[in-house]
Order: sequence, then structure tokens, then C-alpha cells
Amino acid sequence: MITKGKIACIRLLHQKKHREEQGLFIVEGKKSCLELYHSNFEIIECYVTEIFDEIKDVNVILISEKEMERISCLATPQKVLCVVKTPNYSLEDIDNEKPLLILDTLRDPGNLGTIIRTADWFGFSQILCSETCVEFTNPKVIQATMGSFTRVKMIYSSLENYLETKKTRKIYGLFMEGDFIQNQKFTKNDIIVLGSESHGITPSVTKYINNKISIPLISQQASVPESLNAAIAAGIFLYQFCTPNPLKGA
Amino acid sequence: MITKGKIACIRLLHQKKHREEQGLFIVEGKKSCLELYHSNFEIIECYVTEIFDEIKDVNVILISEKEMERISCLATPQKVLCVVKTPNYSLEDIDNEKPLLILDTLRDPGNLGTIIRTADWFGFSQILCSETCVEFTNPKVIQATMGSFTRVKMIYSSLENYLETKKTRKIYGLFMEGDFIQNQKFTKNDIIVLGSESHGITPSVTKYINNKISIPLISQQASVPESLNAAIAAGIFLYQFCTPNPLKGA
Repeated sequence: MITKGKIACIRLLHQKKHREEQGLFIVEGKKSCLELYHSNFEIIECYVTEIFDEIKDVNVILISEKEMERISCLATPQKVLCVVKTPNYSLEDIDNEKPLLILDTLRDPGNLGTIIRTADWFGFSQILCSETCVEFTNPKVIQATMGSFTRVKMIYSSLENYLETKKTRKIYGLFMEGDFIQNQKFTKNDIIVLGSESHGITPSVTKYINNKISIPLISQQASVPESLNAAIAAGIFLYQFCTPNPLKGA
Repeated sequence: MITKGKIACIRLLHQKKHREEQGLFIVEGKKSCLELYHSNFEIIECYVTEIFDEIKDVNVILISEKEMERISCLATPQKVLCVVKTPNYSLEDIDNEKPLLILDTLRDPGNLGTIIRTADWFGFSQILCSETCVEFTNPKVIQATMGSFTRVKMIYSSLENYLETKKTRKIYGLFMEGDFIQNQKFTKNDIIVLGSESHGITPSVTKYINNKISIPLISQQASVPESLNAAIAAGIFLYQFCTPNPLKGA
């Protein structure tokens, strides 16, 4: 059972403004909620349409499918929905010993979610996002991460402030033109920056990039694609960063 | 101006069944329609809310924004919508001298569209899809290709029938476990097969794969992601296929 007032409160969390004001967000689906349950995230409430033995010690509330439809952000609601406290990380939380991915003005939620999932696969446990990026608590981002949001620390801050203190490091940025990524020898202390699909890396961030690199365009047709999808470019970049060629001896 | 009957006809093309019956599909947006206009696709009708000098010699019909809203598949309709004849390719149209990507039971339209766009970038001009794949004429696929559907020949057929005749070729399949892709030496005559995100390559197709390969999982956390997004896996695979390491001398 869930009161009308509570339904209204949860529905407010579908909107960015209220998620930010309340410092809460929604996670849906058994798989994601189980990953959440085993993470350091603080689950405030857990609504279920059936009881799962795996979920205990948290505030579990059994509701009807009709009620779940009303609080869910999904066209096809799942059996579990958690209301979760948004962690609040700042630049001080970045571990300088670990690889860091920086995202500049990534606005598409599906792309951000897919990038978080891919970063998690390739062992990136922290991503620094410009404040102009879509917030990771957006339900479409959470959905696309397939649970990886529980393992990747998301920091939102001014990229310029951070990069100003890291000028001696190798800072790679992905551009339409630059040295090919397969010719680079990355080390885990390097910083990699990705921009938006339509506008690339913003000029104020570009000035900190000391290594402009690109993904080779192989097509030789008379007309060629303008760009790669941002998540695909990120995937290729992360793969190349993490996978030294065996014959390269790297 | 457009008649009510015509509006109804075009709206039918939002549905797979009617697209297949009529052999027609819809392309929206100026960029995609311009690429279409410069391709071999047959444009049956071109609806616009303003006149574009670049589009001529085809059946251009000026309509109102209200009318465009009614025929569009998009939440935010564009200024151009073309009704296009669906090309009908079969196994005989595959060019055995060119690299071939095979997709098995890829059902997500966004993923298929992104894979077509990425294949185009990496110089793959033909994709063979199992009949269980989502049709490329689905509006979400077309949208996600960003015009690349005009440059990549899409063939739908039985994969088993095709692979039965190619047993002497190297047929690579992407699996959760297999030799790492960065250790392979691909040649342009090789065939690469990708399965669905949730179920992988179907058993009847797997038996034709003579090289099982995988993308290395780098994460060393206690819990790790189950898989990569299908389009990301495809992007990494296509990149590695096309980008011989310079120090490898390939």
C-alpha cells in the first residue's frame, strides 16, 4: 500500500528539478536494484510488486502493479523500484592514481548511460562530467547503465578548474582530426576527454588538451558519415586505452 | 496541401506490416533526405514545410507544419519527410570481395541504426541480417543511422544458408569468452558475426563460427558488468578489424 501523497512525491522525482532539490533519484528493475543493494548507495525506500528474498534490511513496501505503474518512469514498469539518495562527489573525491574519463557537455541520456556501462567494463571507476552534462540520475541514464552506475563514481564540476591543476599530465582529447588513437601509448595516469557529438570539446576545455587524437575514418565512399555516435567513440577510445597491442610490448 | 486519405496512407507506414506490404518506408530530416536524394534510393514523394533549393526533380509537396505533425513519426517533426521505395537485396547481392558484417537477431532499433552508422564509418558497405533482426526501415533505425543507411546495403536472409557456402573462410564470432580481439590478424575477406546483447549468437549460427573471439573485460571490481551494449561491442570490433596496429606491420 502506498498513499496518494507518497505517489505524488515519487512522481516528482521523474523531474530533474525535484531530484536535485530532494537529493533523491529512482532506480528500477530487479537487476539494477540488486546491484544497488550490494553497493554503498543509500536506499531510502524499495517498492516491490512481489517479495524477493534477496532484498532485505531495507525499507521494502509491497504495492500493486497499478500503483507501480503510477510511480514508474518506464513504459513497461518492472517489479522493483528504489528511491535512492544521490551521492555528492566533488573534485576532492577523484583518485589521481586511477584512470579518469572526462565528459564535456554530453547531453544525451542514452549515450551517457552507455558510456558509464562501458567505462565500468574497461575498469574506469570514476568519471568527471562538466556541469553541462545530463545528470546521471536521469532515469534514462540509469536504465542504460544496466547497473554500472553503482560502480562508477560520477563527479560533476568545472572541467577547467580541474584541468588547471593537471597541466603536467598527458591530457588526451578526441577530435575529428588528430593523431590516430592506435598510434598512442597510453598510461593509466593519462586523462582522456570526450566532447559532445554535435559540438565536440568546448574551446575553454580544448586549451588544456595537450594530445589531440582521432579515430580513423576508413570509409572511402564519395560521401562519408559526419561523425561517430558519442558512445561508440567513447567505447573505441576506452578499448584502445586499456588494450595495449600484445606485439607492441606495452 | 495533402489529402486526408494521403495522410492516412503515410501514417500506415509507421507500422512494420504496412511498410512490408507496400515496400515503402519513411525518412525524415533535411540531412538524411539530402543524403537520400544523392543516393540510388527511389524517392516516391517528398513532403516539405518550406522549399529547399537543394531538393528538386523529385515529387516535392509543400505542406503545413500541422500536416507534417500528422504524418511524422517523430515527437519533434522536421521540415522534410520522404516516402522511399525499400530496396530488396538478396544473398546474390553480397560482394565477396568486400568485408561483410553479419548481425544475428539484433532487435533493438537504436542499436541497429548505430551499428549501420559505425559500419559506414569503418568502410563496411554491406551488412547481412538474420530475418529475426529488426527491419532497417523502422523509423528509429533510420533516425539512428544519421543518413548512413543510404551507403550500407542491407541484406535480410537466412544466415545459415549463407554461411554454409563460406565454410572455407575465416568466420569470426563475438562471444563472452574467446581469444581477445586485439590478438587477431584480420583480413578484409574475413566474415564477422555479432549476436544479440541478451542471447548472443544463436546455436545454429554458432556452429559455422571457426574463430570465437571476445573483448577483454578490464574491470577488477568485486562485481562487474554482465556485458557491453551490442552497438558498443560492434563499434570496438569494427575498429579493431579495420585498424591494424602500426607496429604490427599488418
